[in-house]
Amino acid sequence: MWSRALRNNLKLNQIRGASTIVKGEPEAPVVKTDIPGPKSKQLLQELGSLQQAGTVQMFVNYDKSIGNYLVDADDNILLDTYTQISSLPLGYNHPELLKVFNDQHNMKCLINRPALGVFPGDDWPKRLNGILSEISPKLPNITTMMCGSCSNENAFKNIFITYQRKKRGENVEFTAEEKSSCVVNQPPGAPKLSIMSFKNAFHGRTLGSLSTTHSKYIHKIDIPSFDWPIATFPQYKYPLEENQRENEEQDKKCLAEVEELFEKYEKKGIPVAGIIVEPIQSEGGDNEASPQFFQQLQKIAKKNNAYLLIDEVQTGGGCTGKFWCHEHFNLETPPDIVTFSKKMQMGGYFHTAEMTPKQPSRVFNTWMGDPGKLIILETVIKVIKEQKLLENVLHTGTMLKIGLLELEKEFCYYVNSTRGRGTFLAINATDSNLRDEILTKLKAKGIQSGGCGTKSVRLRPALIFQEHHANIFLDKFRQVLKEIK
Amino acid sequence: MWSRALRNNLKLNQIRGASTIVKGEPEAPVVKTDIPGPKSKQLLQELGSLQQAGTVQMFVNYDKSIGNYLVDADDNILLDTYTQISSLPLGYNHPELLKVFNDQHNMKCLINRPALGVFPGDDWPKRLNGILSEISPKLPNITTMMCGSCSNENAFKNIFITYQRKKRGENVEFTAEEKSSCVVNQPPGAPKLSIMSFKNAFHGRTLGSLSTTHSKYIHKIDIPSFDWPIATFPQYKYPLEENQRENEEQDKKCLAEVEELFEKYEKKGIPVAGIIVEPIQSEGGDNEASPQFFQQLQKIAKKNNAYLLIDEVQTGGGCTGKFWCHEHFNLETPPDIVTFSKKMQMGGYFHTAEMTPKQPSRVFNTWMGDPGKLIILETVIKVIKEQKLLENVLHTGTMLKIGLLELEKEFCYYVNSTRGRGTFLAINATDSNLRDEILTKLKAKGIQSGGCGTKSVRLRPALIFQEHHANIFLDKFRQVLKEIK
Repeated sequence: MWSRALRNNLKLNQIRGASTIVKGEPEAPVVKTDIPGPKSKQLLQELGSLQQAGTVQMFVNYDKSIGNYLVDADDNILLDTYTQISSLPLGYNHPELLKVFNDQHNMKCLINRPALGVFPGDDWPKRLNGILSEISPKLPNITTMMCGSCSNENAFKNIFITYQRKKRGENVEFTAEEKSSCVVNQPPGAPKLSIMSFKNAFHGRTLGSLSTTHSKYIHKIDIPSFDWPIATFPQYKYPLEENQRENEEQDKKCLAEVEELFEKYEKKGIPVAGIIVEPIQSEGGDNEASPQFFQQLQKIAKKNNAYLLIDEVQTGGGCTGKFWCHEHFNLETPPDIVTFSKKMQMGGYFHTAEMTPKQPSRVFNTWMGDPGKLIILETVIKVIKEQKLLENVLHTGTMLKIGLLELEKEFCYYVNSTRGRGTFLAINATDSNLRDEILTKLKAKGIQSGGCGTKSVRLRPALIFQEHHANIFLDKFRQVLKEIK
Repeated sequence: MWSRALRNNLKLNQIRGASTIVKGEPEAPVVKTDIPGPKSKQLLQELGSLQQAGTVQMFVNYDKSIGNYLVDADDNILLDTYTQISSLPLGYNHPELLKVFNDQHNMKCLINRPALGVFPGDDWPKRLNGILSEISPKLPNITTMMCGSCSNENAFKNIFITYQRKKRGENVEFTAEEKSSCVVNQPPGAPKLSIMSFKNAFHGRTLGSLSTTHSKYIHKIDIPSFDWPIATFPQYKYPLEENQRENEEQDKKCLAEVEELFEKYEKKGIPVAGIIVEPIQSEGGDNEASPQFFQQLQKIAKKNNAYLLIDEVQTGGGCTGKFWCHEHFNLETPPDIVTFSKKMQMGGYFHTAEMTPKQPSRVFNTWMGDPGKLIILETVIKVIKEQKLLENVLHTGTMLKIGLLELEKEFCYYVNSTRGRGTFLAINATDSNLRDEILTKLKAKGIQSGGCGTKSVRLRPALIFQEHHANIFLDKFRQVLKEIK
């Protein structure tokens, strides 16, 4: 039923032909060796003597990789639906990116790396303004950073600073006691405040952001943590249209818990200054929540004088068919902060004017981002617009979703719960072992994919992933499912 | 007395001529407008509408800046002794850096940014090995990151992981309770452990690293913090040779406090897993401690089964005349971890094999550094070696120190306590206002310098800062001191 509705939708979209967006792509994957192959294995031994390298899957030849195809050290050619953990918006060696630094001014921005908070280049305001006007989710301010973790960490700081300013009163000076106590890590200057997060969330790995990450124990074990509240995130049943009542119950229960946690942590003496949430929980298993859930969550935050931070590190940059995933939610006002990184190449966040600290040097570090990355981002945005990549994502995503739903029907004992937006899609295997077997078999057939949560396969292709790539993926997936015993 | 000893020392060094290392430098600063000038002021207004821009001093034309000279948006030419908060090892537009990405392979490493922990390039092990063999402070392992804060944060994690492994017993499995409790931020999985730091230290701005930063209240106020122990760092009197007994007393008192804090936090239920310390406290006021202090500190850490992290983010990269400042200390073994960033362009840390986690995915993030920055670092190291820049630093540093000591003698009512190693030098003004006046007047005469602590002027020139640059700086400094009423 769903897949028919999707097919109808599809007719409304501009149908794109099968001509490849990035020239020079191979027509199909080619697997010549085991993966990792002998050369990758040799390199892994070398790397393993220098560092913990147990997460490495293979070594890549980035000279030969092109478009949606990754070429490994053993000359295996893989169709990449995972793109460096969702971080390569235009695939490999996009011609426009290869040209960016032919411009001598851009090259000088790259190698004369400034302390942007003190000595920005004379084109910096114009460049930042360009980013804001092109892609900001209706938020007027931007703070640039370098990665997802530090974007979230610094966004937390903005939230704490604003929360305390509001509590203290606008224009009220810090007390002598606040000034002296904060320097030695004690209240009242270093207050007991918290950021609420959700079970299965992933927001980064540094100590502050890790205190809001709850997807896998191996990320957190042995690391001290802040005692911050953790609410339950909705766990929907699929297909959505057959489980509406139950899923709405989920929303209600989770939102009630959010309200309870506000009270509980207020009583505990660790008031909640803000909530951080992913529009789709990614690392934690591609868990969606409804627009209504997010609308209510925002209302609850406002009611409690807390701020809403939407973490678009993995969902941002166009992969859901809108530039920011939360734009699907019709919130009554923009969130207070939206963090980004990954596909954006540069880290940072958009925020309301209220979030801007009144005093300088409170959210600050040596580099405050990197003009070299912003220059790449400018080109990424230009290509997304010129080549209508959001439309491409919507079209390919619809084809992919139809295909996955058909596979669900055909192999209902193995896979279920197809979900997601744009090409940001996932499907569940019935258990963890089967999921791992699927990933391994896909790779042996030349498909680089990734898992998330305990039993999900997640799709994170580049924005240039087209219908013919989707068909290759679906064919191989079908072959894999057929081979399962 | 000191300055005579230094002059004698100088004869032992290879004396370098006055020819400029980077061709095309102006001969002297040229100041045409107030700084910030009208163009910078206009740009500041634009930037201020997008973000908190109160720390911005001026806007820079990075196309025109060259060698040790920064050219601002109003065409003022300043001799730069601050170099983007100590982060520009080869000055502006060094010809070797301008060439780095003419190599197409390097360019492809830059724009195809990989998830290094999963899909490293096939030349990555060789490149990492090159860095290790060229500059590692006798430590066999390297973990790459992106900035100073995240290097320290992740180094803390290595320390906690190793500390708990040792406590649990090698090869002992995690318990079910540890696994489930850590995911919700609670002990025993998320244990109460601490990192000891020092008063006036600066180790970064994210929530973990900020808990070890204690230099200025404005960095910390309103931000929640871990309750971690903070020891007193020695405060020496100068000249050192006239205050030996008192300074040795300082060392002893501070080390005794370190031992007490180990006990106190053990009793408090927050045992100390590691100590973080700068070889010279930079942001906190260029506070030095003796080699003996660091030797004893390492012994105390070992005795308490804690690990020693030396933070070389600001001191590393050659500015003290050795590649790493702690190499001046003759420690009996290398520190457990040495973090770096800034002049290295890339963040990260060297560490002992013991610090390597046994399980993968514990110290991990999407990018794990950036090959584009490592490629720049390779060229920086090559130029340091080929152009003998450590020798240049020693020579210029000696000349600078002699000059500062002579100014101290001439203007003893205004300045004192010259100190530091290589060109990593500082001098104190008698108070905070005078220090600020000196910085402002230096800038009006075409010298970009920086302050640190409450009353220090810090010198952080590039490694290509030569004797003739030092003479310009010293001349202008003398003029400024003469003008003070």
